[in-house]
Amino acid sequence: MLDRATAVTGQDGAYRAGLDAGWVVGGGVNGGYLLAVAAQALGAELADRPDPVALSAYYLSASRPGPADVDVRVLREGGSTATAAADVSQDGVARLSVLATFGDLGRQADDVRTTAVRPDLPPPEECVSHRDATPEEFLDASPLLRRFDLRFDPAALGWARGRPDDSGVLTAWFRLEDEREPDPLALLLAVDALPPVTFTFGAMGWAPTLELTAHVRARPAPGWLLVTHRTRNMAGGLFEEDCEVWDAAGRLVAQSRQLARLPR
Amino acid sequence: MLDRATAVTGQDGAYRAGLDAGWVVGGGVNGGYLLAVAAQALGAELADRPDPVALSAYYLSASRPGPADVDVRVLREGGSTATAAADVSQDGVARLSVLATFGDLGRQADDVRTTAVRPDLPPPEECVSHRDATPEEFLDASPLLRRFDLRFDPAALGWARGRPDDSGVLTAWFRLEDEREPDPLALLLAVDALPPVTFTFGAMGWAPTLELTAHVRARPAPGWLLVTHRTRNMAGGLFEEDCEVWDAAGRLVAQSRQLARLPR
Repeated sequence: MLDRATAVTGQDGAYRAGLDAGWVVGGGVNGGYLLAVAAQALGAELADRPDPVALSAYYLSASRPGPADVDVRVLREGGSTATAAADVSQDGVARLSVLATFGDLGRQADDVRTTAVRPDLPPPEECVSHRDATPEEFLDASPLLRRFDLRFDPAALGWARGRPDDSGVLTAWFRLEDEREPDPLALLLAVDALPPVTFTFGAMGWAPTLELTAHVRARPAPGWLLVTHRTRNMAGGLFEEDCEVWDAAGRLVAQSRQLARLPR
Repeated sequence: MLDRATAVTGQDGAYRAGLDAGWVVGGGVNGGYLLAVAAQALGAELADRPDPVALSAYYLSASRPGPADVDVRVLREGGSTATAAADVSQDGVARLSVLATFGDLGRQADDVRTTAVRPDLPPPEECVSHRDATPEEFLDASPLLRRFDLRFDPAALGWARGRPDDSGVLTAWFRLEDEREPDPLALLLAVDALPPVTFTFGAMGWAPTLELTAHVRARPAPGWLLVTHRTRNMAGGLFEEDCEVWDAAGRLVAQSRQLARLPR
């Protein structure tokens, strides 16, 4: 499902994608899905360096379901990584501009000296699925919400029940709807799949992303991913949202930060 | 000094800069200085949106003192922000590629609900200047180190004396050498001015940046800046370095994250 929805055709820097209506949320196509589409075109161009290592995405206008062009320009090749730019447009209107470095995560050094600690969360089967907690008409309006399963600690769901805890932290298990195992592509979705962390402050509106940078630090082990979002600096109408993604083996496999507009 | 060293000439997307030998450190020109040069060209192109809000920089090869070309391409204008790409090259060799969103930080909303807490540090006059703690020949080899004053808590300088504390945290006061007051341009320097945080683990080598994204969240108040670096995920030969910059009024004015190679 994910692979088909993000597939691109083309070569020599000119790629074509079909943005899938199944990934719409709120006012447009999901930002993480769009990033995955761009990553598919980048990966096709940089074929022998298959994995996204660092990607920075600047969101220029809301994407719509339908055809999209992805123009890729290689900036540097040689050594273990390569860097390229990708511009996503629809009918000539710029949607997304990306800079990215790709490499081969299967060939990286095997040192792990991570001091970050994976958050505690009850096992997925003791958590509440967002799909069970979301009204049917809302799922219909935002089909993205059917593309994956998010499982929240029932003790930390006050924000969904009108009792925000002002914590600035959201944590959930993440799995794709068809139980497709995670890989670097899926991590690009995982970093933008949870609700905005501003929900924990009772601000339930849409929080459009200006910029999102993701670092993919390892190929994830099979199984559920654990995803946390956190904000510490809501000011001047903007907030940063830091995301960490842990795999089933307990490794911190992706980190991202986005700058987004505070809901009005 | 900073303003002269980062000045650009040109128009209509084609700018020219002179990379100043005074900003060299280790194997090349300092990454924060290079980011400031790119920001000057971006600011010239996006004249009515004077302030960098978000910048993502991908470092492609080591820059040398001397002339550089900065090509700027506007991706989106309209509303309160504009987004553009900048490519810095020397003699046709790509050095740095940047995506950036500019705006007017003087016109932003005045809400501040920051939950991050400014780290404690003794006042600058009770701290040790890096220039007093660094051998003269090392200052000569890395002229960047004379461009600003970093003041460290003497109780937390074990890493400089062969006794690393394995904390993954560095904190210092920052001021430009000529006591030029901080502004958004200076914040771009501040986020890449401290030694690599890997020094606190006793890894004293150079840590080349792959990618650095900075968010400038407010125009800083006059006076010293307080800068912290932190890493939590050293793995696979890479580490992330998060930076926070606080101004003299106690506001969190900039946040950045970079992905860098672990020193060998």
